[in-house]
Amino acid sequence: MSASESASPNSDVRMRGFAQRATVEEATAWIDSAVPAFESLPTTQVSLQDAAGRVLAVDIVSRVNVPAFARSMMDGFAVRGEETYGATPYNPLSLRIRGTCLPGTSFSGELAAGEVLRIMTGAPLPTGTDAVLPVEQSESDGLQVLVMGEVSAGKHVGQVGEDIRAGECILTAGRHLRPQDLGVLSSIGVSQVSVIRRPRVRILITGNELLPAGTPPEGYRIADANGPMLGALVLRDGGEAPTCDMIPDAPESIREALLSPADIILVSGGSSVGVEDHAPRLLAEEGELAVHGIAMRPSSPAGMGRLSNRLVFLLPGNPVSCLCAYDFFAGRAIRALSGRSTDWPYRQMRGVLVRKLVSTVGRVDYARVQIRGSEVDPLAISGASILSSTTRADGFVIVPADSEGYPPGAEVDVYLYG
Amino acid sequence: MSASESASPNSDVRMRGFAQRATVEEATAWIDSAVPAFESLPTTQVSLQDAAGRVLAVDIVSRVNVPAFARSMMDGFAVRGEETYGATPYNPLSLRIRGTCLPGTSFSGELAAGEVLRIMTGAPLPTGTDAVLPVEQSESDGLQVLVMGEVSAGKHVGQVGEDIRAGECILTAGRHLRPQDLGVLSSIGVSQVSVIRRPRVRILITGNELLPAGTPPEGYRIADANGPMLGALVLRDGGEAPTCDMIPDAPESIREALLSPADIILVSGGSSVGVEDHAPRLLAEEGELAVHGIAMRPSSPAGMGRLSNRLVFLLPGNPVSCLCAYDFFAGRAIRALSGRSTDWPYRQMRGVLVRKLVSTVGRVDYARVQIRGSEVDPLAISGASILSSTTRADGFVIVPADSEGYPPGAEVDVYLYG
Repeated sequence: MSASESASPNSDVRMRGFAQRATVEEATAWIDSAVPAFESLPTTQVSLQDAAGRVLAVDIVSRVNVPAFARSMMDGFAVRGEETYGATPYNPLSLRIRGTCLPGTSFSGELAAGEVLRIMTGAPLPTGTDAVLPVEQSESDGLQVLVMGEVSAGKHVGQVGEDIRAGECILTAGRHLRPQDLGVLSSIGVSQVSVIRRPRVRILITGNELLPAGTPPEGYRIADANGPMLGALVLRDGGEAPTCDMIPDAPESIREALLSPADIILVSGGSSVGVEDHAPRLLAEEGELAVHGIAMRPSSPAGMGRLSNRLVFLLPGNPVSCLCAYDFFAGRAIRALSGRSTDWPYRQMRGVLVRKLVSTVGRVDYARVQIRGSEVDPLAISGASILSSTTRADGFVIVPADSEGYPPGAEVDVYLYG
Repeated sequence: MSASESASPNSDVRMRGFAQRATVEEATAWIDSAVPAFESLPTTQVSLQDAAGRVLAVDIVSRVNVPAFARSMMDGFAVRGEETYGATPYNPLSLRIRGTCLPGTSFSGELAAGEVLRIMTGAPLPTGTDAVLPVEQSESDGLQVLVMGEVSAGKHVGQVGEDIRAGECILTAGRHLRPQDLGVLSSIGVSQVSVIRRPRVRILITGNELLPAGTPPEGYRIADANGPMLGALVLRDGGEAPTCDMIPDAPESIREALLSPADIILVSGGSSVGVEDHAPRLLAEEGELAVHGIAMRPSSPAGMGRLSNRLVFLLPGNPVSCLCAYDFFAGRAIRALSGRSTDWPYRQMRGVLVRKLVSTVGRVDYARVQIRGSEVDPLAISGASILSSTTRADGFVIVPADSEGYPPGAEVDVYLYG
């Protein structure tokens, strides 16, 4: 390919700067207004096995008591508590073993005075007994048991409904389901769970100079770095495994791709105001370009809007800008549409700057930093293009728009990658 | 089913307490000695798209420079910096626009003095120019550009190898791959990544009283809660999606299942010393029962060992004990075999107890707590069987074996669920 040598003075698409930039707060507020309320999010049914990490769409009320019957909490002997009174290791009492109660079984006979049943943890407490003598407080030859201690009525017995009562709400809508939640759901007989449907995300990679992801660079052509990165970010934030397509830098190709079915469309590249930046104009023509140009660094040439029921995010092609714009804006929308908290999914720590962190009043800065113990060291990087800065960094510090940055020794909050 | 009423005095399997309990530290040390070193873990190749969250098995050294050519960092004009000297908004200099440089293209002509090229972010810097004048510092009618500011040589130019140098190690073995790492790998032409193979885990659910997960309770039979919970925990800790089978409480069934192929076998239930607790004896017969009985609450009837190349964890059937024993022991082994840190994957916070937290010297306690702001409230629960305690809890506090617990007002570390 060679560059065009013609330059038409009548070209209707000219390079220009952004007339006005939105603040990060304005952009964020627009997203929050554009995402449906939790109650309106689409839902789906998944099996219990697939429910981990999903977001519950409804309150779960138990129809059953757990346990549904009084049960032994220990391995030992089901006894009448009063028949153990006075027993000590020095003065053991002898009782007759009538049989064994296993979990899942019931004892159908009637116990005479002085009789006990061997019982296993989880087995239903047999009629006529009211306590469990732990095996550790006994000695037995298989026919008789020597009781070495007292147990009062109810001791080591799990009562009906002690864990969960019928009619009780055990998990509420919006819950991000944990492994143990699946255990609780299983134990009340729930095998299908209503969860928030994962948002369907389409990633559109634009840039005629790009080779498919993972291709060695070739002349002036470079491999797409944003597709694999965005794909992993979307999954992290609760989206369905996204489709990712490379789209030629031609208005008709981009228009068609923008109109394809999706909940969220991420356009990587061509988000700015250059002659080849078609996406903002197309979004404005076909739908609404709500925000274009944001007072932040990197990612200032980011934009967003909607096209009928799709939210569209215009992410700079530059990988660091792309990551930053994703994290500030697109990720927020995907998390919200997944029913998750819009907060960043990064752990936070507080640390002390070892060097000055410079910023400019009027824009938010996303500064990559390294961490050593509680020391925070800003990476000395100029441009937004240094993708390796995000792999060398342990995290980032946000410098708000009203700040000129921080001096050495200042305490800062760090968001930790990975 | 009904309980057996016979009790043979000659039965060779008797109920008995644990003769001696291992400490949590001893059990943990055994796991660490039983898991192969990182360097010996089996590896596999995955595509870049599937590499997020996987653990890198090898160092990655770049074969290429990124960028491989000097490129523009801005939309603007490729210029000779010296031709802009003296330009200000009040004293603009006029230069002639010769054409346009787009990303992926090269300019083949030769620029005369006073000529510039329109250039887009990412485009290679054309021969004969050494700087980029940002569009924001210019005005243009399409033929001429008015230069409103100076740019020195190198300004807004990304230099060869500025992001990544050929020969540089960009990611080291053991790295838990982040979304942006995939971007970096893509940009150096890596499409397949060598990662640690996910451990293959088999879950064996024992307990004749159990119904399949998610089944409503029926008489004295209850649904398996541990299978879905353990399945989700294994995935969380980097294991392959585990198989989960319900095994009859019969020695031959359990023996056969223990001998099936796996890296790790989790046996839920039958881990203690009761007549129906077959797994510990079978493990000792077929392999090594390294630890059986641990000084902790809950989970004291947990055990572990190995059977040729399988690590086997015996987890109490009681769901809270099962969760606790998984988190202390089995999860540690799965994380290590995944190449991950053995640390708990829980966020931590420090808080203040609002009530006494009682423990017993000589055992480690796993106390479920609720969090309100920085207040830590221990859940008032007696038994280990209250699975809902782990869903009502926000996290847990570990009370070490040498502690009697903590008074109200004490500062404690909380591990946060979810």
